[in-house]
Amino acid sequence: MAIESSTTIRVRYAETDAMGIVHHSVFPVWMELGRSDLLRMAGQSYGEWEAQGVFIAVAELWVKYRAPAHFDEQVTIRTWVKEAGRRKVVFGYAVTRDEVRLAEGETVHLVMGRDGRNRTLPDAMLALVNKAW
Amino acid sequence: MAIESSTTIRVRYAETDAMGIVHHSVFPVWMELGRSDLLRMAGQSYGEWEAQGVFIAVAELWVKYRAPAHFDEQVTIRTWVKEAGRRKVVFGYAVTRDEVRLAEGETVHLVMGRDGRNRTLPDAMLALVNKAW
Amino acid sequence: MAIESSTTIRVRYAETDAMGIVHHSVFPVWMELGRSDLLRMAGQSYGEWEAQGVFIAVAELWVKYRAPAHFDEQVTIRTWVKEAGRRKVVFGYAVTRDEVRLAEGETVHLVMGRDGRNRTLPDAMLALVNKAW
Amino acid sequence: MAIESSTTIRVRYAETDAMGIVHHSVFPVWMELGRSDLLRMAGQSYGEWEAQGVFIAVAELWVKYRAPAHFDEQVTIRTWVKEAGRRKVVFGYAVTRDEVRLAEGETVHLVMGRDGRNRTLPDAMLALVNKAW
Repeated sequence: MAIESSTTIRVRYAETDAMGIVHHSVFPVWMELGRSDLLRMAGQSYGEWEAQGVFIAVAELWVKYRAPAHFDEQVTIRTWVKEAGRRKVVFGYAVTRDEVRLAEGETVHLVMGRDGRNRTLPDAMLALVNKAW
Repeated sequence: MAIESSTTIRVRYAETDAMGIVHHSVFPVWMELGRSDLLRMAGQSYGEWEAQGVFIAVAELWVKYRAPAHFDEQVTIRTWVKEAGRRKVVFGYAVTRDEVRLAEGETVHLVMGRDGRNRTLPDAMLALVNKAW
Repeated sequence: MAIESSTTIRVRYAETDAMGIVHHSVFPVWMELGRSDLLRMAGQSYGEWEAQGVFIAVAELWVKYRAPAHFDEQVTIRTWVKEAGRRKVVFGYAVTRDEVRLAEGETVHLVMGRDGRNRTLPDAMLALVNKAW
Repeated sequence: MAIESSTTIRVRYAETDAMGIVHHSVFPVWMELGRSDLLRMAGQSYGEWEAQGVFIAVAELWVKYRAPAHFDEQVTIRTWVKEAGRRKVVFGYAVTRDEVRLAEGETVHLVMGRDGRNRTLPDAMLALVNKAW
């Protein structure tokens, strides 16, 4: 059974905009927070990946916004792996407040070295990602 | 012939991340800057739209990242209208540095009132959007 | 005995910069988070203040940086009231990671109405602020 | 006669908050933009400093806010050197919109190597900084 992470944060004032709601560019930041939690939960923080020279650069981002979030609300980001390969990993996300779906999203990542060149995911990391698939 | 805007900015240090490149969540902010320039160029700034109670909320965001941007580089955002309707407007974007394509994107917007309810675009604004279609 | 709030957050990747550390402009955002927690703890969230037409706009900001924060670290913001008046409230902050002091700061706020004009703090809110003084 | 830089930017929607004005944490980002322009104007971009292993980390930040900025307004940041030493450089800033003073600020920087340890500014860079003093 695939693991899935759940991250709850409180909306910061700095994240709102003049429309009185959270700016749409903040959702990718929250999704990344979910991604970090999922990897830590699977057994190794993304900081440790980078320390070993493995980077998963964002190659594609998609977000669908369904309802706005506001200052001080508690928002939950659920994160899971949609596709796990040696060269490409796809994460899925759902952002909710209580029972209300605020947004859903997807990010496609390419595995890279510190030099920005493509490389493949070592076995141990692929195994971690597979836990969440 | 449809108009298209071109916005050139210099990458801010605050926009970079620990990978040494511009964080992916910054591209939607740049695309929004392009959108504002396109509307101003078409004849009316988005601030004036809001002052008249017309908001175009982001309903969907898509970005494809092709190459990284770095601190202090000059980056250009080209923006155009991909679809223009009374209830929905779609913008297209291309982000480049010199001749290098860094990213392309798309945002889908729904026309709303100050209360967050759907409304339709007044004739004068639809005419402006059509100039860039 | 004055109350003091303690807020713990995990550093987001988007908060880091090309130097590999948290960008200095992020600390005021964390301090604001601490301020919100302190007010909620004192009995009323800042969102409720605004709903009643009372705003505490930042008039002055000071931060002293002592050590850097990095991605994924857990950072704690302690917040307290340094000065409480009907027209002006001053908050103090200390940011730490484990036993290491990362930064300390201060923000001076002026009490305003929705129109941006100075006003005085109602008795009930002054009493809340005094709890943390 | 000391040089001084002048940087004009247009306020981004993402920089506003639910109060309808630019969030206070954005001013340090604008000030940094001014700092980069001043160094480039003095003869060498900060990117080149870093490439040579010289970093000027922010050790202290102070901002006084006098009037709010709003979406789409054009804002100018003037930047100059207040104090120039081999180990410490202090920059001063004034942010204005037309003739209105929005804010003024100051940042204190310590000269560091890539390892985060203190070092001294090479002669050529000290000469550049002195041009703006």
